[in-house]
Amino acid sequence: MGAALLPDLITEIIIPVCAVIGIAFSLLQWYIVLRVKLSPDSTRNNNNKNGFSDSLIEEEEGLNDQSVVAKCAEIQNAISEGATSFLFTEYQYVGIFMVAFAVLIFLFLGSVEGFSTSSQECTYDKTRRCKPALATAIFSTVAFLLGAITSLGSGFFGMKIATYANARTTLEARKGVGKAFIVAFRSGAVMGFLLAANGLLVLYITILLFKIYYGDDWEGLFEAITGYGLGGSSMALFGRVAGGIYTKAADVGADLVGKVERDIPEDDPRNPAVIADNVGDNVGDIAGYGVLIFLDSYAESSCAALVVRSISSFGISHDLTAMMYPLLVSSVGIIVCLITTLFATDFFEIKAVKEIEPALKKQLIISTALMTVGVAVISWIALPTSFTIFDFGSQKEVQNWQLFLCVAVGLWAGLIIGFVTEYYTSNAYSPVQDVADSCRTGAATNVIFGLALGYKSVIIPIFAIAISIFVSFSFAAMYGIAMAALGMLSTIATGLAIDAYGPISDNAGGIAEMAGMSHRIRERTDALDAAGNTTAAIGKGFAIGSAALVSLALFGAFVSRASIQTVDVLTPKVFIGLIVGAMLPYWFSAMTMKSVGSAALKMVEEVPKQFNTIPGLLEGTAKPDYATCVKISTDASIKEMIPPGALVMLTPLIVGTFFGVETLSGVLAGSLVSGVQIAISASNTGGAWDNAKKYIEAGASEHARTLGPKGSDAHKAAVIGDTIGDPLKDTSGPSLNILIKLMAVESLVFAPFFATHGGLLFKYL
Amino acid sequence: MGAALLPDLITEIIIPVCAVIGIAFSLLQWYIVLRVKLSPDSTRNNNNKNGFSDSLIEEEEGLNDQSVVAKCAEIQNAISEGATSFLFTEYQYVGIFMVAFAVLIFLFLGSVEGFSTSSQECTYDKTRRCKPALATAIFSTVAFLLGAITSLGSGFFGMKIATYANARTTLEARKGVGKAFIVAFRSGAVMGFLLAANGLLVLYITILLFKIYYGDDWEGLFEAITGYGLGGSSMALFGRVAGGIYTKAADVGADLVGKVERDIPEDDPRNPAVIADNVGDNVGDIAGYGVLIFLDSYAESSCAALVVRSISSFGISHDLTAMMYPLLVSSVGIIVCLITTLFATDFFEIKAVKEIEPALKKQLIISTALMTVGVAVISWIALPTSFTIFDFGSQKEVQNWQLFLCVAVGLWAGLIIGFVTEYYTSNAYSPVQDVADSCRTGAATNVIFGLALGYKSVIIPIFAIAISIFVSFSFAAMYGIAMAALGMLSTIATGLAIDAYGPISDNAGGIAEMAGMSHRIRERTDALDAAGNTTAAIGKGFAIGSAALVSLALFGAFVSRASIQTVDVLTPKVFIGLIVGAMLPYWFSAMTMKSVGSAALKMVEEVPKQFNTIPGLLEGTAKPDYATCVKISTDASIKEMIPPGALVMLTPLIVGTFFGVETLSGVLAGSLVSGVQIAISASNTGGAWDNAKKYIEAGASEHARTLGPKGSDAHKAAVIGDTIGDPLKDTSGPSLNILIKLMAVESLVFAPFFATHGGLLFKYL
Repeated sequence: MGAALLPDLITEIIIPVCAVIGIAFSLLQWYIVLRVKLSPDSTRNNNNKNGFSDSLIEEEEGLNDQSVVAKCAEIQNAISEGATSFLFTEYQYVGIFMVAFAVLIFLFLGSVEGFSTSSQECTYDKTRRCKPALATAIFSTVAFLLGAITSLGSGFFGMKIATYANARTTLEARKGVGKAFIVAFRSGAVMGFLLAANGLLVLYITILLFKIYYGDDWEGLFEAITGYGLGGSSMALFGRVAGGIYTKAADVGADLVGKVERDIPEDDPRNPAVIADNVGDNVGDIAGYGVLIFLDSYAESSCAALVVRSISSFGISHDLTAMMYPLLVSSVGIIVCLITTLFATDFFEIKAVKEIEPALKKQLIISTALMTVGVAVISWIALPTSFTIFDFGSQKEVQNWQLFLCVAVGLWAGLIIGFVTEYYTSNAYSPVQDVADSCRTGAATNVIFGLALGYKSVIIPIFAIAISIFVSFSFAAMYGIAMAALGMLSTIATGLAIDAYGPISDNAGGIAEMAGMSHRIRERTDALDAAGNTTAAIGKGFAIGSAALVSLALFGAFVSRASIQTVDVLTPKVFIGLIVGAMLPYWFSAMTMKSVGSAALKMVEEVPKQFNTIPGLLEGTAKPDYATCVKISTDASIKEMIPPGALVMLTPLIVGTFFGVETLSGVLAGSLVSGVQIAISASNTGGAWDNAKKYIEAGASEHARTLGPKGSDAHKAAVIGDTIGDPLKDTSGPSLNILIKLMAVESLVFAPFFATHGGLLFKYL
Repeated sequence: MGAALLPDLITEIIIPVCAVIGIAFSLLQWYIVLRVKLSPDSTRNNNNKNGFSDSLIEEEEGLNDQSVVAKCAEIQNAISEGATSFLFTEYQYVGIFMVAFAVLIFLFLGSVEGFSTSSQECTYDKTRRCKPALATAIFSTVAFLLGAITSLGSGFFGMKIATYANARTTLEARKGVGKAFIVAFRSGAVMGFLLAANGLLVLYITILLFKIYYGDDWEGLFEAITGYGLGGSSMALFGRVAGGIYTKAADVGADLVGKVERDIPEDDPRNPAVIADNVGDNVGDIAGYGVLIFLDSYAESSCAALVVRSISSFGISHDLTAMMYPLLVSSVGIIVCLITTLFATDFFEIKAVKEIEPALKKQLIISTALMTVGVAVISWIALPTSFTIFDFGSQKEVQNWQLFLCVAVGLWAGLIIGFVTEYYTSNAYSPVQDVADSCRTGAATNVIFGLALGYKSVIIPIFAIAISIFVSFSFAAMYGIAMAALGMLSTIATGLAIDAYGPISDNAGGIAEMAGMSHRIRERTDALDAAGNTTAAIGKGFAIGSAALVSLALFGAFVSRASIQTVDVLTPKVFIGLIVGAMLPYWFSAMTMKSVGSAALKMVEEVPKQFNTIPGLLEGTAKPDYATCVKISTDASIKEMIPPGALVMLTPLIVGTFFGVETLSGVLAGSLVSGVQIAISASNTGGAWDNAKKYIEAGASEHARTLGPKGSDAHKAAVIGDTIGDPLKDTSGPSLNILIKLMAVESLVFAPFFATHGGLLFKYL
């Protein structure tokens, strides 16, 4: 078997060092972004200082128009305040939930052995003694709170960064599309590195601290660590649902009234819903989405890998380096992403609009290629040449190159999913162009083609996921799947950067419009935004793909922990779970879509009221009452996040307690295989509609011009499609991958309870 | 154990007698419908004869206007000709497939034992000798052809009946809504009884004939009989897909051009697509839908029940009556439905529009209540008080009352699904009214609310299905599930009657419009049609619910036949099957929706061309070129039915041959649990949009009037929803239940081959 080449001591150093490097790099990028000054005076000073920022030497349009700068700063401030106040409101509600659920975790897990403080026999190795169930209860609760707080903090900081960056991107757009791109992308990188590195660091420190108590009881340690994933995921769910409803209520409302009824552009400052719309981008797409989804997948896949890992020969042979292999892969990922980022920010320069998308795509390719090498190296030095894992009772011999292939297959499957998503959602390719073309005959054909596109876009990603599962499982069972998931997420920092770039650009465009900047600048921010839609869709593709793998790994860990021998579809207990589980994503989507629709209707009622009651609003001489619209979105999202959140959080508890672990297994499998499909198709349909609209608006080709211009019948049809797509791609779709992961991780955390006290209904029937 | 109370001889008599009674009743109804004369002269003669039809005594508007009658006859003729010519074209292509697939079945199954003619040991009871595999190959092929021909014939006759009935319904509408309802309903009953009885009779005779060869080898006999289900299902699939594309290409095309572009009503004779649209209702909703889907579920659930049954103690104790229990339940069903029909046609009379829907609902309740009694009686006299079934190797003791409960739970689950469907798709309840209300803010909110409604409507049906599965499986394993499916379909004759009633009413409305009848008559046919939309949705609910149960039973039979011990989700072979299977309904839907969209676009191009090139068309002085539109629909549907058909037919063959039975099991389970959800939500979303539009058009309430009238912005938004719903509810949605059943029955037929030669890829890897 042999030990790993890498000594334990170096492992213990390398992980925090990589994390710190990531954080340092993030701060450096932040410093560079901050050099774009928002206050008029200091901008002038910088110019005077001459050469402090050589980009400012070139004088382009409106560069010296200080009133524009002031206006941008004012708008940015309004957005930032709105977002901050919303997040505080949200966190109050979520905080109550967090505490209540923490108590629940403690009580459920503590009751497993009747709150006994004496040690118990280990789950997998009956000959040894492990820490008492009460310890698991306490540490799981602590880990849960830690995960929840990390998640909330990440969301908050992400939002703060994004609201700083948006106006700066707008200002840079005056100097050219390349400059604007760099600011938006750097800001994305700040977020990506800060959060990825921070996530790794918190997890690592937590493990070290827990280890002081647990010692050699790796099983108990990683079981408790799973609470971290649950905390992160549950916060991500509420954040996503509330943020998704917020942003889309405002967006749909603004679209409906602004574009269709009054012929006022989406981001016109006279539209009362416009600030709410821009706040929404930040709380929905940054705080609620990019950050949380990735971070949370990342935390969970690490947990899954660690938990499954603990059931291997490493735990017995006390091989710390091999045990920490998942974290080492993530550490290498941070370094790889750092190098990759330099390709976008320093090695090359964007000069034209059409270079933006290729530049972002190149990021994906470079990071994947470099990461493959990185993983190969780390697998070679950190793993023994062969080792044993325990796969549902049977033992399995694994070679280190096999584990490398598990990570690599996940990594490349992610890239394939990314490219397929791009193909179906970018307006450079025929699918979106066909959808745009179908607008010629009205909104109905647009919707039919868009839905068909979304359904079709599921095919290749599912095959990619299936192949990853098959390969990684064949090599290393559930541990292989967890590592494939981690592989898909190992380039998370780059993924986050290009994902966060989207809403920043979207906001930048909004600010340009509101600040009354010229058409040319708006065109540049629109181009950034269109590329952002595609990268957002790619990000969602990654998130969903990894969620599928992570959920499966967590599901495997759950089954193993709950001591189920097989999950046989042809037993009624499992099958009813399977079919009901497959229904849950529909139930959840129904709730979230209805919420967006209802909230948007309220917005639509409010806006014309303002146009009618505020004199001079339409002429632009009076200011609309932005605050009321912000309040409508806030109230709606806080109120409406509860039922879907409850559905997801309570289902595993109810099913596990009353129907038992077999039915719960069915529910997990069913929601997984069904949710993945809806999530992918909903995201891609929405992305395609959005870009079909942008395709018509931009009029970049002969074909596009026959459909446009803005305001033509085809364009109106495209706007309808875009509006329908909003809740699909930003509310229900991306929440679904949290749904499947969250149910899996929750089941895993509560597995000890379900295994001993679950299935009440069948016990008494 | 004891024998059944009912002697075998009486069983042998009772089944064909019930079938014959059903056929006789159908012919009686047909005779009554035919008394509505379509030729002007004989109508006058009848009036002269005085009292021949007392309904003709009342003179209502336009009753003596012979030119209207002639016009109706002419239109009916055009529709009938169009439908006939389309079906003949379709059958040519399908015929080629049928022969090719028959050869395939023979070769695959014959090759199992290398075309040996010597007897082999039985699959389940290794101590006995059974007929050779070659015999199974030959008889399966024959049964397949028989099933296919029965299915095609049923579709053709159904269409003929419907095209006779449509114009007669229109003419009766002159006398009042009650008269029109009776004609439409009676015509539906003709179809329902003729096909249910015929299906039972063909199946019974086939069993008797096969038994001459098979003797006591019930296993072999019923294995061969499964081919009957495969034949029926595969024809149903092609019929459904081709018909669905045909009808919706025409419908969407006619809608788009007629309503949106030129402000010409849907059924205006000047609209060139109007005949194609009406032909579509017949080939799509009658020949391709109602008939086939029901008949085919019915045949398959009988087959499933029989196959699973053959693995029971009856086969060993040669208990013919108990063996024929599934067919006895169907026989009782025919008698129960006959009595139920009398409630609608003779015991009560419809006098007002608002009585139509309750009358149809009453049909469902009465038939279910009576059938519960009928099943209780037949279970008591035809089954021994207890008997043994074999459940995946283990034995299970079943009481006769337990089996009764299996049938009853399916029966009542069907009723619940029916009512839930009605609640979500009828414009008498708040869900559809909410969707209509959302049209106020445009098409986008209409679509968002409609999609959310569809998703939500899945919840209760899935619980109903899950409970049926759990109860019936707990009592009698897979046999229980098959009987629950048969229970859900035991009132098939009534179900078919109210299902076929819909398209007949739809056509009647079209004919009234085209014949230039008064607004009052059109209102009556519209009311019939709105009720028809709801019953169509109910019918789809039943079809999907039963399809889920049937597929599960077939799946169970397949697993049992393929000698798989467990279908463990946590083995990679099964899981990749599960996730890919769950994707198939999306792939299939993408194909069919895109086909409808593309064909509709062609239609939309053609129609304005005619308006521009045919002088006097818009003024109504010239006739449009209907034939070109019919040809567009025909060509599109024939061409486009092949890829989705191939996907469904080839998937089990490819997966079984290359990946083996475990992966195939996963695919079946995945497509089942995912397909059911999409099928229900797509049907209900489409039905709700259609009725939301009708709700606004009818303006029957204060609320509805604030949204209307026809041509208002809200109505235009509703039309867009209706158009999007067309392919969802009539093409992709209802095809999905064929997809899941067909893959299951095909797997079962080919199980002997897969079990011996399948899984090539994994064998060599």
